[in-house]
Amino acid sequence: MQVAFSIAQGAVGQTSPNPPVGSVVVNHGRVVGMGAHLRAGERHAERIALDMAGEHARGGDLYVTLEPCSHTGKTPPCTEAIMQAGITRVFVSSLDPNPLVAGSGIQTLRDAGIDVQTGICPELADELYQPFFYFIQTKQPHVTVKTAMTLDGKIAAFSGHSKWVTSEHARLDVHRLRHVHDAILTGSKTILHDNPLLTTRLPQGGLHPIRVILDTQLVTPIASQIIQNADAPTWIFCGSTASKELEFNLLTYDHVEIIRMNDPDIAISAVLKELGARGVMTLLVEGGASVNSSFLQANAVNRIITYIAPRLLGGAGSLTPIGGTNPALMSDAKEFVFVKTEQLGPDLKVTAVPKGSDRYVHRNH
Amino acid sequence: MQVAFSIAQGAVGQTSPNPPVGSVVVNHGRVVGMGAHLRAGERHAERIALDMAGEHARGGDLYVTLEPCSHTGKTPPCTEAIMQAGITRVFVSSLDPNPLVAGSGIQTLRDAGIDVQTGICPELADELYQPFFYFIQTKQPHVTVKTAMTLDGKIAAFSGHSKWVTSEHARLDVHRLRHVHDAILTGSKTILHDNPLLTTRLPQGGLHPIRVILDTQLVTPIASQIIQNADAPTWIFCGSTASKELEFNLLTYDHVEIIRMNDPDIAISAVLKELGARGVMTLLVEGGASVNSSFLQANAVNRIITYIAPRLLGGAGSLTPIGGTNPALMSDAKEFVFVKTEQLGPDLKVTAVPKGSDRYVHRNH
Ligand SMILES: [Zn+2]
Ligand SMILES: [Zn+2]
Repeated sequence: MQVAFSIAQGAVGQTSPNPPVGSVVVNHGRVVGMGAHLRAGERHAERIALDMAGEHARGGDLYVTLEPCSHTGKTPPCTEAIMQAGITRVFVSSLDPNPLVAGSGIQTLRDAGIDVQTGICPELADELYQPFFYFIQTKQPHVTVKTAMTLDGKIAAFSGHSKWVTSEHARLDVHRLRHVHDAILTGSKTILHDNPLLTTRLPQGGLHPIRVILDTQLVTPIASQIIQNADAPTWIFCGSTASKELEFNLLTYDHVEIIRMNDPDIAISAVLKELGARGVMTLLVEGGASVNSSFLQANAVNRIITYIAPRLLGGAGSLTPIGGTNPALMSDAKEFVFVKTEQLGPDLKVTAVPKGSDRYVHRNH
Repeated sequence: MQVAFSIAQGAVGQTSPNPPVGSVVVNHGRVVGMGAHLRAGERHAERIALDMAGEHARGGDLYVTLEPCSHTGKTPPCTEAIMQAGITRVFVSSLDPNPLVAGSGIQTLRDAGIDVQTGICPELADELYQPFFYFIQTKQPHVTVKTAMTLDGKIAAFSGHSKWVTSEHARLDVHRLRHVHDAILTGSKTILHDNPLLTTRLPQGGLHPIRVILDTQLVTPIASQIIQNADAPTWIFCGSTASKELEFNLLTYDHVEIIRMNDPDIAISAVLKELGARGVMTLLVEGGASVNSSFLQANAVNRIITYIAPRLLGGAGSLTPIGGTNPALMSDAKEFVFVKTEQLGPDLKVTAVPKGSDRYVHRNH
């Protein structure tokens, strides 16, 4: 099952709107087939693994990270393929994310006399599927906020100078994050100040996330990289009163789309609803202190990944990861739980999720 | 040797001006004696271990974390005791911190025909002895700065409200830090704002560090806990122009001492020199953003211990661990290296030392 999860992890970020799935077929202790669902509309993981196994699948075991489908979608149901291949035992980690059909794939297999076990490796399932299940249940993207700070909590000097807080190891990891997210979001301040490209730049390539910009007054310059570079769609959210002329100028670029809100201000909740409606399942927020604060205040942070560099900057006016209005008391802080701490070169990578955040993975059946 | 270090660790903070030492005597694979130097003037670790072993020491091995002394101090030399006990092999981790006599204890033993091996467990030696060796070489205390912040780098709300950033687990660990340090330092702002006691409060008791306050104008109130509570000496550093009347009032308390600087301002370098002259080997700085900044700017941070709570406070005006004047560039940050990351209850404890900081432990001979 761990191999199946490794295979699935390899396809994270490229299967939207489907979740990533990995599958392995074993017969007499030997792996005879494996596969991952690589892209919506293409073969499911189980079928790839079974096709690879061919006749060796007969009498064997199939491991799969997600419950096999039993309905005909863009491809015929996987339960049918499993039965036809003569598999005798099926090990499933996570049930179908849709509670209405969860368990029906397993029931179909059991009705055909196949031994099915579920709930294998629940921690791996949580890590892989929580974003997808969150999207399916809420119709909004799962939000990961990424910050990079010094050990004394600074993201930039008072001047805004921030190159570089962390090492190349951490910066490379950020590109891995971009690859696995459907969209990346930042504010117009970051565009004006840093003029970032917001694409995925990994040695082996990688998928570019959709660029989402919060820009109330449409101040994004035509000369900025996200306008001049068309490698990824650029969606700019603006307030209801933003200049039509600026909108017109930006729309001369085919990859640029303007999404005008009903209110003069941009509400995070409205942005998330719109992104969800457009099928964005996972959103990476790489904002400055203000954008991060907006997401925190809107209780819209599903995960925070903090890169901490072993440096001390100091400066009472240096910038910190989350700004916004000043809470009166320390007890106004929002509570999270550390779920992972890793060393990346000289830096630390710390992952936290909201305390008591619901687990969306159906572990048992 | 690891047992010897564990024993020595148990005496950290109570042996000044001597370093902590642990020793174990083994004969035919059986521990026959162990001991730690507990307090200046009392028996050394080797002698306690040998006394415990008695006749069982003959033909045995002695492990000791620090090179045995070969000169008569407040107690007779340990080398003599080792020879008299009939020990045949001696395992030493660290050489004597005083470079003038380093190696002489080992030479004495070797001259007596005893097999001596050195440099055992160098990492443990580094961790235990670096502060002491730093003091001996520089005549200034080894400085540990302790901070506690949220995952977004805040130590307090804009109002100064800071109770509590971290969990009771982390706060208990701070009391362990106080126990093992000779002195604790903070600024008058912290006294005015938090009115702390600055004593060690562990379930099993613990030693109180000397309280050191940086108070340029002697604004420390008579009613503050550090004046009203006499459990530990309170040394208040003030500028040359501080009011004589305020000094007179404070000096009515026997445990209070005023140390007047030659300049109107308090220079960290002068404070460290004075503390070193008074035999303070290890100093724990529990300051606010300004005091921490002064130590950072003076390049006087030998170690920083950061407790990170899994909470996000936000607030552009919330307080951060290190304040002071604003550096222009991120590259003005001082470089450190992470040496340890631990989970303490819900919190993280991260220890870092200056990049390229000298290692004061003599590993080989
Ligand atoms: Zn399927
Ligand atoms: Zn001795």
